[in-house]
Amino acid sequence: MLLPMPPTSSMFLLAETREHPMHVGGLQLFQPPDGADALDVRAMFDEAMTSAQVAPLFRKRARRSVTSLGQWGWEPDQSFDLEHHVRRSALPQPGRVLELLALCSRLHSTLLDRHRPLWELHLIEGLADGRYATYFKVHHAMVDGVSALRLLSRMLSEDPDERDMPAPWALRTRGRPSGSANSPLALPRAVLHGATDLASVVPTAVRMLDRGFGTADGAVPLTAPRSVLNVPITGARRFAAQSWPIERIRRIGKASDTTVNDVVLAMCAGALRGYLRSLGALPDEPLIAMVPVSLHTSDGGTDGDGGGNAVGAVLCNLATDLADPAERLRTVHVSMERGKQSLDGLSQLQVLALSAITMSPIALGFLLRNHGRARPPFNLIISNVPGPRAPMYWNGARLDGLYPLSVPIDGQALNITCTSYSHELAFGLTGCRRSVPHLQQLLTYLDDELLALERATGVA
Amino acid sequence: MLLPMPPTSSMFLLAETREHPMHVGGLQLFQPPDGADALDVRAMFDEAMTSAQVAPLFRKRARRSVTSLGQWGWEPDQSFDLEHHVRRSALPQPGRVLELLALCSRLHSTLLDRHRPLWELHLIEGLADGRYATYFKVHHAMVDGVSALRLLSRMLSEDPDERDMPAPWALRTRGRPSGSANSPLALPRAVLHGATDLASVVPTAVRMLDRGFGTADGAVPLTAPRSVLNVPITGARRFAAQSWPIERIRRIGKASDTTVNDVVLAMCAGALRGYLRSLGALPDEPLIAMVPVSLHTSDGGTDGDGGGNAVGAVLCNLATDLADPAERLRTVHVSMERGKQSLDGLSQLQVLALSAITMSPIALGFLLRNHGRARPPFNLIISNVPGPRAPMYWNGARLDGLYPLSVPIDGQALNITCTSYSHELAFGLTGCRRSVPHLQQLLTYLDDELLALERATGVA
Repeated sequence: MLLPMPPTSSMFLLAETREHPMHVGGLQLFQPPDGADALDVRAMFDEAMTSAQVAPLFRKRARRSVTSLGQWGWEPDQSFDLEHHVRRSALPQPGRVLELLALCSRLHSTLLDRHRPLWELHLIEGLADGRYATYFKVHHAMVDGVSALRLLSRMLSEDPDERDMPAPWALRTRGRPSGSANSPLALPRAVLHGATDLASVVPTAVRMLDRGFGTADGAVPLTAPRSVLNVPITGARRFAAQSWPIERIRRIGKASDTTVNDVVLAMCAGALRGYLRSLGALPDEPLIAMVPVSLHTSDGGTDGDGGGNAVGAVLCNLATDLADPAERLRTVHVSMERGKQSLDGLSQLQVLALSAITMSPIALGFLLRNHGRARPPFNLIISNVPGPRAPMYWNGARLDGLYPLSVPIDGQALNITCTSYSHELAFGLTGCRRSVPHLQQLLTYLDDELLALERATGVA
Repeated sequence: MLLPMPPTSSMFLLAETREHPMHVGGLQLFQPPDGADALDVRAMFDEAMTSAQVAPLFRKRARRSVTSLGQWGWEPDQSFDLEHHVRRSALPQPGRVLELLALCSRLHSTLLDRHRPLWELHLIEGLADGRYATYFKVHHAMVDGVSALRLLSRMLSEDPDERDMPAPWALRTRGRPSGSANSPLALPRAVLHGATDLASVVPTAVRMLDRGFGTADGAVPLTAPRSVLNVPITGARRFAAQSWPIERIRRIGKASDTTVNDVVLAMCAGALRGYLRSLGALPDEPLIAMVPVSLHTSDGGTDGDGGGNAVGAVLCNLATDLADPAERLRTVHVSMERGKQSLDGLSQLQVLALSAITMSPIALGFLLRNHGRARPPFNLIISNVPGPRAPMYWNGARLDGLYPLSVPIDGQALNITCTSYSHELAFGLTGCRRSVPHLQQLLTYLDDELLALERATGVA
């Protein structure tokens, strides 16, 4: 029995190639409960594997056949093989975060097996600091990055004393944790699935690229320069990630009358400036980022599980041509304000089009290819996805860090995705291994820029 | 500068899909030198990585373009990135061979990055027994399994005291070690490359399938039964391997007046019978194996590096319908004798055709698809490739075991490849993870069968 798959899902299967794997990933770090060590956490996962409980979402596989007229659909995998999906790995010595990121880079580079449910969970031991890591990989046809974060919340508990929790892949059915209730990107899936045919969205989306995006900076439309980030990509990935206390970012925002998101963008701006200068590849004109933002449509709606929230996008001037951190932050702030204003009063279809562009690298790739621009419409995507606000636990093991891995595409060789969790904001950098060399260095530049912004705004 | 690629190489690139990765692999186990441990061996590899020395073979990448009229060719990779190719891994606890085989299964399942030279070397630490492992993966377009073994010989030394050896990927140029000089399968590459156009080979090969193979068992042509091994396959692999002393196999051969290869085939026959019975899937008719054998053509030739040796194939009746181990060995022996006789007096072109079939899973797949048979022409391929006879060392670390990973294809879900090295014969079983369940159990059945053959022939 083949259940139909919406075109917004199947397009990820249709467009996937060995150069463009279409899965998202998440790296989770766990602190063992008091008196336990990393191998005890592994033992809990081993125990969980002995249970046959697997949520239907993780049992379904994609298939198309002559009888489905070549259309992709979902069906239960009749010979489901948990050991294929849940895999034990270990880090080589000295077991630093560096070795962990190298492993995740490799795991994120390989294609999922299409004959099976499109996910893998890698259990990773060997961190010298005593923590235990998991890397979760799931196809974009199954969930997007935001849904993946929400899934994670359903796998965990806010109660540090809760035990006998089911396996993460068993997915408890219960209320959402408090933290993600109002997350601005909470409902893109629902929005996307409203579009039963991508064809109705694309023409509007193309117009948005010109009109909605083009006027984001006021009278003068933003044009992105050519850059080393906007090239064809290869299959291998490089992943780097680090987190910083949200409080440090918030203090800069307060002192400069800007938002947390503005400061995040300014950090990326300064870091990209430093990184590209070190490569001798900084364009004279400022880099332009596409930034997903939440939209409250004029059609009304609620903040709950129903419609109402939706995702738009703003083109942001990253001011990488300016040497002063405070000036960069100011320019980013003004650019974001104007961009958000220009999104006011959009129709439901326009919102839908923007959401489709924003949430799906493939729709984006499709538009980029078909729009026939000489220059890239923007240089990279920088997303900021809110995660759980309260500390989360799995059988007493505290989730200590949460880092997103995303999908670079042709012409967009670097993706920056941030996720907040508890008191930290994590930056996940996913790049084409060939086009974005020494990606790791961007983390140092991010750290430098945070410090520079603290100094420039007088909070440090 | 694009160097042309022979069609016998490019066909592996043309035919590769995510379900059919076209690389071969080898698992090597190293015993650290006296007074050293596994991490010292790793330190030697780390040291080797600091050298920029890389053999041209390992620097070339495959490319095709408009200017090459869509034909595949080789060119040097201008931004060669050694860290992409040489990767550190570790085994999860308890670090048994079981965990090592699970890791190799996964590493063997993923595609190589086509934008780069088509090889990976994985350095694997964490074996509880103190050994150090490497898994080498190389695309069939670059080398075949036999050439890969010869490459390995060039990376190592027979001298346990030799130090300051270059990195394995630097490939010393020196004489071949004594062990492999007369290996029957030593020159398939030269033979294959003689065919500048596959088209001239295929019609002859198809005739060979009917005539050469069909009469291998005398008057009654062998027909292979349908079996669970002859089904479409998926991308994920399962790998299992174990070695036994060659002397045990040789004693059985002497006592029963059969060859080492006959005994190897009889071991496989008995193991397959036990395995398929446990699945409730043993066909009534005996399984038929395709067995590559060395050919001395009537056109003459020498045993050296020039022409003369070539590879043919015999269809062997594995007698899986017989319950008695001694009877199975006898039937295998007779079947192999008749098969080899029927290969006498083949023309050079016929030998070439057989070699193409035997050495290339793709040519084989092509023939199987185009031949329109209701039944498979055979149930699996069992190869026996001689490796180095003398113990080999890398900077004093002794090569302690050598296990081959091969290429299952559609309709041939299990491949058995054996390699001899020093005093051991290793069986490498590579199967489609979905079609060949519990592959590991075949090792137990092989061990049982060796014991049964020893008892049946009175040597144990």
